[in-house]
Amino acid sequence: MQTMEPPFTKQLRSLPASIPFVGPETIEREENIRFQARLGANESAFGISPNAEQAIKDGATATYYGDPTNFNLRTELAGVHGVSINQILVGGGIDGLFSLIAQAFIEPGTPVTTSRGSYPTFNYFTTLCGAALGLVPYRDFCPDLNALAKEAQRSKSRFVYLANPDNPTGIFQIRNRLENFISKLPEDCLLILDEAYIDFSPPPEILPVGKEGPRVIRMRTFSKAHGMAGMRIGYLIADQEVVAGLNKIRNQFQVSRLAQIAALASLKDSAFIDSVVAAVAAGREDYHAIGEELGIKTLPSASNFVAFDLGSPKRVSAVLEALKRKGIFVRTGPPPNNRLLRVTIGAPRERTLFAAVFKEILASEHLGASK
Amino acid sequence: MQTMEPPFTKQLRSLPASIPFVGPETIEREENIRFQARLGANESAFGISPNAEQAIKDGATATYYGDPTNFNLRTELAGVHGVSINQILVGGGIDGLFSLIAQAFIEPGTPVTTSRGSYPTFNYFTTLCGAALGLVPYRDFCPDLNALAKEAQRSKSRFVYLANPDNPTGIFQIRNRLENFISKLPEDCLLILDEAYIDFSPPPEILPVGKEGPRVIRMRTFSKAHGMAGMRIGYLIADQEVVAGLNKIRNQFQVSRLAQIAALASLKDSAFIDSVVAAVAAGREDYHAIGEELGIKTLPSASNFVAFDLGSPKRVSAVLEALKRKGIFVRTGPPPNNRLLRVTIGAPRERTLFAAVFKEILASEHLGASK
Repeated sequence: MQTMEPPFTKQLRSLPASIPFVGPETIEREENIRFQARLGANESAFGISPNAEQAIKDGATATYYGDPTNFNLRTELAGVHGVSINQILVGGGIDGLFSLIAQAFIEPGTPVTTSRGSYPTFNYFTTLCGAALGLVPYRDFCPDLNALAKEAQRSKSRFVYLANPDNPTGIFQIRNRLENFISKLPEDCLLILDEAYIDFSPPPEILPVGKEGPRVIRMRTFSKAHGMAGMRIGYLIADQEVVAGLNKIRNQFQVSRLAQIAALASLKDSAFIDSVVAAVAAGREDYHAIGEELGIKTLPSASNFVAFDLGSPKRVSAVLEALKRKGIFVRTGPPPNNRLLRVTIGAPRERTLFAAVFKEILASEHLGASK
Repeated sequence: MQTMEPPFTKQLRSLPASIPFVGPETIEREENIRFQARLGANESAFGISPNAEQAIKDGATATYYGDPTNFNLRTELAGVHGVSINQILVGGGIDGLFSLIAQAFIEPGTPVTTSRGSYPTFNYFTTLCGAALGLVPYRDFCPDLNALAKEAQRSKSRFVYLANPDNPTGIFQIRNRLENFISKLPEDCLLILDEAYIDFSPPPEILPVGKEGPRVIRMRTFSKAHGMAGMRIGYLIADQEVVAGLNKIRNQFQVSRLAQIAALASLKDSAFIDSVVAAVAAGREDYHAIGEELGIKTLPSASNFVAFDLGSPKRVSAVLEALKRKGIFVRTGPPPNNRLLRVTIGAPRERTLFAAVFKEILASEHLGASK
């Protein structure tokens, strides 16, 4: 087949070919490795609710399209959060929702503000639509809320993006700080509040749903505490005018039938989620203890991962490579947060394996020297 | 929560709120109906491969993200079709692929050519990106290939969209006609060839993969013959430059892990697909026989549905409403193909039910009169 120059848009041609995430399957294939512990993508080590599993096992449901309105799930979510069903939009995970939001709000040159070094997928989808990204430095591994608000004011941003808890640091902004931050944003600027990990955060300090005001879009997912990363389902809670606009352009069949059914079943199994949250909290303590034992700073985390500060990107690269050779899949953050080793809270077996290998690697002289 | 005017793009504000598809779940809920036969969305009445079902039942896999490169599935598909793995892109069903293609190729004002009355979702996603749609009339319920090529030439279209077999008519264009059509398209115009239903078409008359030339993007799905509409997985076969460009902007995690695994298992179970195709062929004969018995024209179909020509949209509306009241979910096409009643090939039980109710409805004087 001869090749041609396809008639892509100018915008697409200007984008680099990029691989935002190299998955463990690719590494296994290309480097002939078998991972023993999958601690790089903050998936859940604690599975899914038995109720959800039962729902999935009803395989016949794979045959029919899911309800394009996601009615049952939205009804349940509206009840859980005490909002109107018209404030909820279900999509293909938070990444799918980013894509939708970018298409709805971003034109070439639209100013957007985010933190340099935070979760990159928001940037990926907004850049694709031509956003002009204003990137604000972290302060002490924490998204700098004052600087974000100031930059949003300066650039007249349409969006500010904030992950809370942050990724890759795990840092959590308590309610008061968030409220103060929101009050400082420009009147017509939306806050995209990515709460993928919020189920692992202390409930009394979470900004209550309904108190965030009409300029905030809260993003939630079933990929983390609910253990359904592989099913692609998330949702947003927003002002109903925002939801109505997004509904104009939503891919109505994006969310699979199995995912809708499994998410609904999981949502009704709060005892399971509580058990996962408790198990993750115990795992965080394990990781902090490992850091303390090794003299490596760990960042406080309100998520299902812990970031170890190895001091330099070079050291992180060497440790990542050594972990990979020992069958452990772990990742770091985007620059300048690539001096962090971000490790998912694994199951006890995985944590024990990680601890042993991590200690062994750090004890090796070569890596000790590059510290 | 107070409402606000969200800062949507001009493009989005110009779009109407639309509901491209009212699902049977919505009708059941709003009209307090329980459907006994689901014959409106061309899902498969014949389930999924037992191999795929086994793969789905391994529920633990829901917990991990799927391979973002879809490597195993693409490898198998490349083998099946005799193309390079770099010519295959897997996405969230054909609708998900439309969205991707629209974002890659369409800017406000980009000319696009399609048939008025064909599958509407292509139009939905391209319009969202600002495409100027050139709509060509059908000729005898058949996409008019000469007129499509002529309009593409006139408007200097970037795309022509053709569903083959067509939806909602079921009409199939044989290889020679397609080759002739492709040769008449402008040099720099891509043909989006939507082959969702191609598994039901006569193999010797299908344009062989690899013979379509570099300007054709072929869209395939696991939603129909493979019975996986609810899992959201499809793929395209295209020139590798096209695939490389689309990969720049693809939502890497769009396709669920379960869908990847199930699709791969199904692809290896060609005996199952053959049995589905045979069962559908038998069902088509049933429907044609019903039409003959009732004196209602049926269109030739190479798909898993049959279109009954009821002569007028008014009569279709009345029949649809009556079918609905009897618990049968069926749909029509977009205007002017809304004089067609498009009925999915159901399982024998559903076909028997449909036949009985359809005959009863047509026998009623009121409807007979409006014929």
